[in-house]
Formats: sequence, structure tokens, C-alpha cells
Amino acid sequence: MDHPHQRRRAARGHDLRAVHPRPQAGRDRARPQGARRHRRPRPRDVQAIRRRRPRGVGCCCLARSAPTQTFTGVDSSGIGALSVFRTPVIITSPHNETLKQVRKLAAKRERARAGAFVAEGEDLLEAADAAGWEPRARLCVAGSGLPGTEVEAELLHAVSQLGSGTRTLAIYDQRYAPAATDGLTVHLHGVHDPGNVGTVLRAAHAFGAAAVSLGPGTADPYGPKAVRASMGAVFATPLVRAHGGVGDLPGATVALVARAGTALPRLGAQLADGPVTLLVGAERDGLPDDVVAACDHVAHIPIEGESLNAAMAAGVALYELRRIHMVTSDE
Amino acid sequence: MDHPHQRRRAARGHDLRAVHPRPQAGRDRARPQGARRHRRPRPRDVQAIRRRRPRGVGCCCLARSAPTQTFTGVDSSGIGALSVFRTPVIITSPHNETLKQVRKLAAKRERARAGAFVAEGEDLLEAADAAGWEPRARLCVAGSGLPGTEVEAELLHAVSQLGSGTRTLAIYDQRYAPAATDGLTVHLHGVHDPGNVGTVLRAAHAFGAAAVSLGPGTADPYGPKAVRASMGAVFATPLVRAHGGVGDLPGATVALVARAGTALPRLGAQLADGPVTLLVGAERDGLPDDVVAACDHVAHIPIEGESLNAAMAAGVALYELRRIHMVTSDE
Repeated sequence: MDHPHQRRRAARGHDLRAVHPRPQAGRDRARPQGARRHRRPRPRDVQAIRRRRPRGVGCCCLARSAPTQTFTGVDSSGIGALSVFRTPVIITSPHNETLKQVRKLAAKRERARAGAFVAEGEDLLEAADAAGWEPRARLCVAGSGLPGTEVEAELLHAVSQLGSGTRTLAIYDQRYAPAATDGLTVHLHGVHDPGNVGTVLRAAHAFGAAAVSLGPGTADPYGPKAVRASMGAVFATPLVRAHGGVGDLPGATVALVARAGTALPRLGAQLADGPVTLLVGAERDGLPDDVVAACDHVAHIPIEGESLNAAMAAGVALYELRRIHMVTSDE
Repeated sequence: MDHPHQRRRAARGHDLRAVHPRPQAGRDRARPQGARRHRRPRPRDVQAIRRRRPRGVGCCCLARSAPTQTFTGVDSSGIGALSVFRTPVIITSPHNETLKQVRKLAAKRERARAGAFVAEGEDLLEAADAAGWEPRARLCVAGSGLPGTEVEAELLHAVSQLGSGTRTLAIYDQRYAPAATDGLTVHLHGVHDPGNVGTVLRAAHAFGAAAVSLGPGTADPYGPKAVRASMGAVFATPLVRAHGGVGDLPGATVALVARAGTALPRLGAQLADGPVTLLVGAERDGLPDDVVAACDHVAHIPIEGESLNAAMAAGVALYELRRIHMVTSDE
């Protein structure tokens, strides 16, 4: 492709055009354009994909590869050897229902509707296994030897939300817990960056928080970026949906702000026993004034420089609160 | 554009084609293809861009807008009013030398060659001003009222490394300092993620570290992602290039590892006075065994969960070391 500055023309957008014009443009514009749109009769020159099956019924689109012969129940006498033919299935079509669902779950609305989410990568799926989560469906690249239904590599990469593609992914049910009655809860208010939400989840898990509570304006913890950044903590740390006000949060409430209130280490004695909720706001805006006013304590992390990343601030505060708790329980 | 799964064809790459074929394909392939390649005589039907100036000389590509009349030196008597015609210049061509340089500085090799880097966004440039850094060049969107040479919005967005485009950017000299002789130094070893490097810089600045030292395999702190993640700390915290071994690092060396050595809070008394260097490794691999063996102390952050993000671990360790130092200096 010729770069605009080499062709001595002004750089205006991409020099690429779609091979096909936009679908259903012009006079057909008013008709439904989604996957379930009305369809014209299939043109004669278009090859049918599934000729032998009725449309819409059991469209699992599985290609049966050559049967693999496995022997089970072979006893030492050699008698009674039972041969079972197992036909491993490989998903070879992008129309497969599971792949369709994985694609859909990239959208927050669909995740909320289905009450499900996708986790990608071997590390995350191992974390899910360790935490005892059963996937709705589990896919892996054909020939990888990983557990799950095998899929052609190209198809799995096409539905992956990771830049580098993935070797395995799974669909899980979303789980929300009731508010923790003891220990340390982190409450996120307006933390709209999914990476920060995931990183806070990871830190909360590392420092043994009882739960992470999700206030208004906070990114979906089950979105692909948050799940990725949590590095599996999303499966280990209970998530709580907080619809009420500050008064409904468990225990003593501590608002974490930038440069007001007490230095966090000095709160020690007041937070020694009973449950504590740490409230964390967005990076730039912080917590709203009315939320800060409703909290039992206002605290900051003593720093010299300008500011800390929201997730970093939450992490350091969690560390400090845990340290306070350990020091006072040693005494 | 028609999605592959709607067209009932296998999803194979983009359905986009370049409007023009690849440049200089076929029999011309062996010739130089860069910007300074041999050129054919200009075809008659191509409009000249700069007809009045000799090629290659003073190609500053500035469009002079209508002159703005400004009055300076007006005294109270009204006599001696001196009218100066100032012609504000707006960069309107992608061939402008400053824009070219901004584009080039996206590459690490060019940054190292030129000893320069680009910072984008008003926050970062304010941080640079506050730290007293003079830019080599400073650009802003035409009509924004920001300081710097005005550029057409489209052109500035085209050279921006931020996803959302930027209203201003500037080119600065890279600065490296000699190793700090006192205080706390953070040494990064093999931290190849530029976002983590930037976040550590920000935390180092927040917790008052004397310097950040960059060991082998660490991402360029002057890359666009690291500069962005540092949120201006790149201008405030001295950066040190560490070519030598662990022995050359200042003060007592503390290797931060996942689950070995002493819990960091227990190192207190041993690190109370004199300079300290905290060594941080990459997220997955950690510090190499020989580096850990060469350190004076080996410490970990006491956590319950699996692991911490590398930048988070460094931030918490910095917080803890600073707390230790403050507690012991109070006594």
C-alpha cells in the first residue's frame, strides 16, 4: 500500500475500501439487518453449507474426524477386551452456537442478560479450576491437548478478546455474593477503568480481603479486560453488588481520598476490631463529596509526589489495613 | 461491510483490499523504496505541491494565515504606538520536519539515536513545565489556545500514539542521571512491560524514591506507553542506566521475590540508615537466581493470594520501606 505522504496527497483516513458495499443499503435500509433478519430466497449459485440437516435445528456444525480406537477394560488375561470407538469432535464452523455465544459475551449487555462471562488463557482457567468453578462450556485449540471441545485455531483466535490470541477459553456463570459480615471489604465507586477494577480484585485477593463491593459507575468485573487484569482473582474473591448507600456497607467505612483526613497508618487503633469497608473512587475525580461525608473515617496514603494510580492506591491501602490488623491482633 | 458469518463463508482475514497495489512491485522491486528513493520525472497530470520553492530546501511547509495586527509598546500618551505585524503559522502539511520527527520517535531505535522522546497530553506537558523541562518542540491543535506551534487537528491526531488523539504534544531530550548516593533507589530487572515501568516510576515519585535504575531487559522508560503510565513522574524522578552488576548498585540491596526470604516489614532495623536499592523483576519470571544470590537481603511482601502485579508489588514495597524509614527516623 502506498503511504499518503509518499503519494504527495494529504493524509485523510485509510486508503482501504470494503470489497463489498455496506449490507442492505439504500431502499432496504429500513428492514432488520441483524442475524435474524428476513432473508431472500437463497440464490442458486451460493453453495449450501449444511445440505443434509434442517435449518435452525441442531446446528452444532461439528466435523467428525477419523474415529480413534481406544481400548478400555483390558484385563491381564486378554479376554474380555472391549473396544470402544470414540469420535472426537472438532468445531470447524463459525456458526457453532458456543462460538456465537463467546462472541456475544464481549458485550456488557449480553453478559448481564445471560449472566455469564468468558475467561481466556490457561492461567485463568487453571485458577477457575482451583477455585472449583464449573464452566458452561470450555474450548481449546485443536491438537493442544488441553481439556475442552477442540476448535480450529483460526476460529478460536477470531473470537478471542486478547491481542495475541488464545489457546483455550471457557464460559462461566457470573456469581454475586451477599455482603461480607466480617473482615475487610473494598468498595469501588465510579472506577470506570476495567483494568483498574481487575487489578484491585487481584490486590484484594492477595491481601486477603473478604469481598469486593461494586458501587455505581464501576466497570463490569466480568468484562474481558477486568477478568484478564484480575489474573484469576475474579474466581477467588467474592463480588458484591452494592445498590444502597454508604450506610448499607458493612462495618466501619473508610473513604480513601488524595490529600485530606488522617494518614492511613494513624487510623490503626480505631479499625483494630470488627469489619471494615474501604471506599475507593476513580483516579481523577475521586469519591463524590456526599459519599466522603457519609463515611465514618476519611484517610489518605502519605505520599510526596502528585498522585497514585487508583488501583495502586487501593493496593497500598489494603496492605496497610491488613498490616494494622495483624499488628493489633498480635498484641 | 458484510461480516463473514453473515455471508456464510469461512472467516479468513480482513475483507479489505488496498485501493492501490503495493508500491514498486514487480520489476522495480530491487530499487530503493524509502522516502529518498530515485524518482521518475513527475508526471504532467500530478499537481505540484510546492511550486515556488526549490525541492529539499527549507521545506517547512507552513501556511501563513491572514496577518494579525498586534500593538506593542503603546504608552499612555498615545504617541509612539508601534504596530507589529505578526504572522501566526499553522502547520498544514504532513511533510513538516517536526511532525516527521514525532512520527519517527515512536520507534525505540530512533529515540535512542536522537536522545529524545515525545510526551502527549496537557497533564504530561504541565508536569514537564512544573519540573522545568524545556521542550525541543511543542505542538498544539490549531485554535486550542495552548502554547506551542499550531497544527491542523487531523495532522496532530495522525502522529499521536494515544488512542483518543491528543490536543498537544512536545519533544523533549532524554535525561539520565548518575546513580543516587542516598535514599531509596528502585532497580528494575527485566521488566519488559512499558505500562509497568511507567507505573513503577509514578509510585517511586509518590513515595519519594531518589532514583529509578533501569537494568537489562527493562522497557524504555521514554516509550509512549511508559511516559503515559508515569503520569508525569518521568520528568520528576531521576532515571539511571545500570550497566553493571548488583555490586554497583548503591547501598544495601534488597531483592523483592514472591515467596522466599524475610517478610519485608521485618527488615526494618537492618535498612534504617544509609541508602537502599530495591530490586524488582518481571511479573512472571521474577529476578534471576544469580541476581537474588548477589543481593544483601531477600524479602517478600506477606500476601495470602497467589501473586501481585509487578508494579503493585514494587509500589507496596516502596510504601513499606518508606514507612520503615519514617518510623525509625522518628525514634
